[in-house]
Amino acid sequence: MAGLQRRLAAFAAARDWQQYHTPKNLAAALSVEASELVEIFQWLTPEQSARVMEDVGQAARVEDEVADVLAYLLQFCEVLGVDALSALSAKIDRNEGRFPTTAATRPVHHSQ
Amino acid sequence: MAGLQRRLAAFAAARDWQQYHTPKNLAAALSVEASELVEIFQWLTPEQSARVMEDVGQAARVEDEVADVLAYLLQFCEVLGVDALSALSAKIDRNEGRFPTTAATRPVHHSQ
Amino acid sequence: MAGLQRRLAAFAAARDWQQYHTPKNLAAALSVEASELVEIFQWLTPEQSARVMEDVGQAARVEDEVADVLAYLLQFCEVLGVDALSALSAKIDRNEGRFPTTAATRPVHHSQ
Amino acid sequence: MAGLQRRLAAFAAARDWQQYHTPKNLAAALSVEASELVEIFQWLTPEQSARVMEDVGQAARVEDEVADVLAYLLQFCEVLGVDALSALSAKIDRNEGRFPTTAATRPVHHSQ
Repeated sequence: MAGLQRRLAAFAAARDWQQYHTPKNLAAALSVEASELVEIFQWLTPEQSARVMEDVGQAARVEDEVADVLAYLLQFCEVLGVDALSALSAKIDRNEGRFPTTAATRPVHHSQ
Repeated sequence: MAGLQRRLAAFAAARDWQQYHTPKNLAAALSVEASELVEIFQWLTPEQSARVMEDVGQAARVEDEVADVLAYLLQFCEVLGVDALSALSAKIDRNEGRFPTTAATRPVHHSQ
Repeated sequence: MAGLQRRLAAFAAARDWQQYHTPKNLAAALSVEASELVEIFQWLTPEQSARVMEDVGQAARVEDEVADVLAYLLQFCEVLGVDALSALSAKIDRNEGRFPTTAATRPVHHSQ
Repeated sequence: MAGLQRRLAAFAAARDWQQYHTPKNLAAALSVEASELVEIFQWLTPEQSARVMEDVGQAARVEDEVADVLAYLLQFCEVLGVDALSALSAKIDRNEGRFPTTAATRPVHHSQ
């Protein structure tokens, strides 16, 4: 992932796009891409959504939006010096304490 | 990243949360977390947004939301069998062809 | 609705909040509120989502988020001079031509 | 606005789209449209965002997305029996108590 983050940084630098890459703009771009992923599923039933990769066109669209989300997440982390893997590892550690396995319930919104 | 994806899958399985983790629901949860990242920046100027990590409380909030976005992205990829790193690598390859470095312009929405 | 738009404008002016109310910021705030509405439904089945108003607490939360979405939509329209009702009326006119009633299908994303 | 809400309900009924119009799906569609509005502004400076209606093409795009956001908000309210205008009016009443005009500060996220 670090290699991809460096490639993205070099890609932006070579095109003089860093001026647009404020944390505010990159967070907005990330949310726009996440919504494009939602759009693929918005009218599907839960069952249809589970079979979305069976259609070649839909599968390519899903992979494309996943790439976009990850690209903006890594660029956001790059400009702010955030280590996404460390942040997630620490969060899983915390959540293991917060949600003991004996209390299986509806998933809780992690940031609450 | 593969290790974190496995930890998240085990975490969900141990709590019987897989029933909620349809691709449709995980895409929605991803977009909700991305919006929580946007919320941190929504009233900031571009300059203020670049200094957000200087405040310890804001920095912790940013890292927390980054972790949440990555967590849902990896869980989405897990249930659909998508390799996020490969998808992004392939996308960067394509974009290097689409945006030659001599034509520096405003960043183009990658999925257009 | 015009009366509410004027109340919101006066509310912001009285608190000197206009400086934060750029179209860019208001669009972001609108999307953040829309995501808070999504969050209410993210783990619900379609059937559960249809019964959300039966719970008093959930009903209040839904109404609160609807108010927030409408508030930011009206403030966005205020700063850009957009007439939301006219824009929607014109759009329905166009869509009646684009989607004849004999061709009933899955709903199409209106802006495509 | 009530007239537009009825037109939208009739439009959906005539096309047998009601089956797709669960509250969950309509909330997702609303957030997708709000993100399409954000997308217009994502790389603009605050100053550029304030001048977006000067460009005929951008102005049409803004009006189109405003129409989409309002359309899904009204359809969401229709299926759940929510009165958006009443909800907003009540919210402004509450906010006038919460944010006295003497304490002008950065706008606070209304639902917090």
